[in-house]
Amino acid sequence: MTQPSAPEFRRDPVSGWWVIVAPERSLRPLSLEGSSPRHRAETDRETCPFCQGREASTPGETFAIREAGIAPNAPGWQLRVVPNMFPAVRPAAANASGEGLFQALSATGRHEVVIEAAEHIVNPVLLSDDQFRDIFIAYRERLLAHAADPALQSVSIFKNVGAEAGASLGHCHSQIIALPLVPEQIGRELRGSSNYLHGTGRCVFCDLVKAELAAGVRVVAETPGFAAIAAYAGRFNHETWVLPKQHASRFETLSDSQAAELAELMKRLLRAFDRVLGEPAYNWYLHAAPLRSAEMPHYHWHLELIPRTARPAGFEWGSGCFLTSVSAETAAAQLSAHC
Amino acid sequence: MTQPSAPEFRRDPVSGWWVIVAPERSLRPLSLEGSSPRHRAETDRETCPFCQGREASTPGETFAIREAGIAPNAPGWQLRVVPNMFPAVRPAAANASGEGLFQALSATGRHEVVIEAAEHIVNPVLLSDDQFRDIFIAYRERLLAHAADPALQSVSIFKNVGAEAGASLGHCHSQIIALPLVPEQIGRELRGSSNYLHGTGRCVFCDLVKAELAAGVRVVAETPGFAAIAAYAGRFNHETWVLPKQHASRFETLSDSQAAELAELMKRLLRAFDRVLGEPAYNWYLHAAPLRSAEMPHYHWHLELIPRTARPAGFEWGSGCFLTSVSAETAAAQLSAHC
Repeated sequence: MTQPSAPEFRRDPVSGWWVIVAPERSLRPLSLEGSSPRHRAETDRETCPFCQGREASTPGETFAIREAGIAPNAPGWQLRVVPNMFPAVRPAAANASGEGLFQALSATGRHEVVIEAAEHIVNPVLLSDDQFRDIFIAYRERLLAHAADPALQSVSIFKNVGAEAGASLGHCHSQIIALPLVPEQIGRELRGSSNYLHGTGRCVFCDLVKAELAAGVRVVAETPGFAAIAAYAGRFNHETWVLPKQHASRFETLSDSQAAELAELMKRLLRAFDRVLGEPAYNWYLHAAPLRSAEMPHYHWHLELIPRTARPAGFEWGSGCFLTSVSAETAAAQLSAHC
Repeated sequence: MTQPSAPEFRRDPVSGWWVIVAPERSLRPLSLEGSSPRHRAETDRETCPFCQGREASTPGETFAIREAGIAPNAPGWQLRVVPNMFPAVRPAAANASGEGLFQALSATGRHEVVIEAAEHIVNPVLLSDDQFRDIFIAYRERLLAHAADPALQSVSIFKNVGAEAGASLGHCHSQIIALPLVPEQIGRELRGSSNYLHGTGRCVFCDLVKAELAAGVRVVAETPGFAAIAAYAGRFNHETWVLPKQHASRFETLSDSQAAELAELMKRLLRAFDRVLGEPAYNWYLHAAPLRSAEMPHYHWHLELIPRTARPAGFEWGSGCFLTSVSAETAAAQLSAHC
């Protein structure tokens, strides 16, 4: 097999979106390939590269939560962050450029994996409270670390659970992709919320949380500091957003105790997903302000959770308009009963 | 079971996109549900509501290609268009409206199914040349018919093949959703191509076809009138666009002989998909000018084909940036060798 070419960003000549073309991704092992149910991943225990004792099967860690006095890349850890073996972006990508209609950019960046448990846990609701809290602490610490590289503008942090949701390995993990640009969906939220601030003087997310808690009909669960809301116009059935009640644009400001409170709420929510939707595949992703931004009055970090119980089809891909069959009010009633 | 509420459009309060919430869609039968391979649909032959002789199991036809002198909704047809039993939009949806952050609109429109063969054919490459041509003639005729309703602004026409691509029935069919608005992806192409016209005086799609045919590296196949091009920045591996070489913004202008030529090219392309990708699930969708528009100098209708060989994951849904692993040049080399 010939060496795959370096990853690059390419811009669509008509619509202007950017994609990443990363040929070496096609070499990654796909233990959850195809249509395997979420828990078939249990059978991967024997070969799982993320389990404690197999530290040599990943690149060396860039961050870890481990007992004091134990060397890196050796057993004795609770959580590890390691570079992705099959990265979408690379620290020093070869120069790419385009001409005319065909614009390209080097896919410079960092692609990391957050390994969330030393043992082979596949369902995130089985993580201990401390393990779940540490996920969000790791997100915060990696945001702070990547902010040190001025070439990076923004960090995409997300979790794929189950093959249907795009996971290729079962062992609980998240992914971090630090990018040299602000991606489309974040840009869109920044513009939308900026327009709202100009029109009203307020943060649209703060108003949303306030309106939703007052109305009650789309509230899935809450804690003193956070609200879980069924998205009014979600692209997926049972799409749920988790937001801090107090305004904060930067996830980097999350305290350890807030991380524990967020983890508690997320775990309740995932248990409700499992009960109501029969252990569905799902994704979650963090939307937060770009790296090194000052606190923004219009933007407000949040997590979005999307169960993958239906597949977008020709209508969605062709029109950009998503077709769902469960209203946010129904979703909230179903989920809150088990939350 | 209580009667589902009427379908409505809802607008995301931050990003501004519209979704359709259509609770009655959840009642539709899903014979391809879950992870069944594409051809398990063959087993649905005994109960298929689209087969000739079962005309009574669909609503009455709105268009048909059938032998002269045979009554509607009776055997003797080559192609039928019927209202979808589980519509995403409805001719007279109840009034919906929103307030404040929560904007809604009645999902007024038409949702139809194009049944492309009287016999139970599941793989579109097995349609005869005439059957394949008639698909595009039906698209044209329904565009012309829906243009008569001033409440409708645009028509989304698409095809889902295989459960992975969102199909719920195997029998060859397309879907038509006529909408009271111009959906996001079409709006985006209209804006992008309008900007290009203002900057250059030319149609970006015409320039694209010319540049691609000159470069050759992303050409999958061509006929005298059409080109099939691997999309430079496709969101999916092997995404392919089929465009007329002569400028035309309105699909309604397609002649019968152009329909036959387009069908021939599409069939070659689908055969190549089947050979190279192992009979993948896929979608195609038509991008064309809004209803009742005059010929537009900047816009250019085209079909986009997306094999569903990978599932967008948390990165794509969270960032809007798509991650692919096969470059357009590799895709074109693979597909053109079998086209």
